[in-house]
Amino acid sequence: MENKGSLQEVRPDEIEKRSFEIISREIGSVELDPLEAPIIKRAIHTSADFDYLENLVFSPGAAGLAMEAVLGGATIVTDTNMAFSGINKRAVERLGCKVVCFMADEDVRSAAKLNGTTRAAASMKKAASIEGPLIFAIGNAPTALAALYDMIAVGMLHPALIIGVPVGFVNVVESKELIMKTDVPYIVAKGRKGGSNIAAAICNAILYQCGGRDE
Amino acid sequence: MENKGSLQEVRPDEIEKRSFEIISREIGSVELDPLEAPIIKRAIHTSADFDYLENLVFSPGAAGLAMEAVLGGATIVTDTNMAFSGINKRAVERLGCKVVCFMADEDVRSAAKLNGTTRAAASMKKAASIEGPLIFAIGNAPTALAALYDMIAVGMLHPALIIGVPVGFVNVVESKELIMKTDVPYIVAKGRKGGSNIAAAICNAILYQCGGRDE
Repeated sequence: MENKGSLQEVRPDEIEKRSFEIISREIGSVELDPLEAPIIKRAIHTSADFDYLENLVFSPGAAGLAMEAVLGGATIVTDTNMAFSGINKRAVERLGCKVVCFMADEDVRSAAKLNGTTRAAASMKKAASIEGPLIFAIGNAPTALAALYDMIAVGMLHPALIIGVPVGFVNVVESKELIMKTDVPYIVAKGRKGGSNIAAAICNAILYQCGGRDE
Repeated sequence: MENKGSLQEVRPDEIEKRSFEIISREIGSVELDPLEAPIIKRAIHTSADFDYLENLVFSPGAAGLAMEAVLGGATIVTDTNMAFSGINKRAVERLGCKVVCFMADEDVRSAAKLNGTTRAAASMKKAASIEGPLIFAIGNAPTALAALYDMIAVGMLHPALIIGVPVGFVNVVESKELIMKTDVPYIVAKGRKGGSNIAAAICNAILYQCGGRDE
């Protein structure tokens, strides 16, 4: 066996920079909105899937409105502990934001049972009463998006941003289309693709654009 | 605005079943090894990316050896808290296994600083001393795979399985190729693709094949 000499010597902090250079080069001449570009590139960075160049759609001004929400101390609400884990907590703290996931909460479990909904839907309802700007980052549950839609439709909720990127094969496409019918700012991965990793990557991209990072 | 009537009424426990039926249908006539098929399908399920049908490669017998390790009470070691979060803890417990992630540990941080390595590499070294069968589930850090390779090469470590699915653009392909040169059982996502979600999905597929699930 040879040793690990086949790996390039790259300082850890250089790896991300070089990765984004490769992504930019491979995107080539596709013109991207300057506020949307870092979000799209970070989704590609976290998946190595260039489909996100086509899939990610932004409501008018969504990327700028997302930054405003973060700079206004937004609370980010996720529908999985995995997305929660993937969001850079130091960036969140530095910017005076919060990130929460209520999926494992006992009151959410009982509310879901009582009302015959999913825990994802019940956790969205719990989050709706949080004060200040709300960013919903949904990488898993179509029912979370449906619950958000219902609350928006009756005027109970007007979030600063919905990141609608659940992944999957049943009700996923439809739930994203629901969100795109609202007047709420959104970033949606059209089609089946998405995931908790994509939801976290989009949040991190927005946090970093707002100066949430060390470097 | 219309209500959420555009979503199909599907019981939550039915959604996954139906999703796997759709995946199987779209895979079509591709012949898969019966122990590998649930792993490949769960990687597709978590990403909606059918590239994993081609990308995922198994060393001979790896899927069966993975099950043996789990049934022998393996410890699963991840290189991110995100992968840790995504692994079904109830399944892990039910099967008498463990799952650990040392990335945020203080001793790992100091060891990395002292030895000039990444925290991922230091956390692999810390994990190497765990007793019993070890499954490494690497969805992020090429340096974790390189550290595993080095320990295997000098006979310090012989894990039951390496899940080598880091995602990215720098050293990722090379680090996976290193693991494929060892005599250790592996499941590797060839090329750039992978991620913490894929690492967790592969672990869950193995746990579920071993009966780690409620249903």
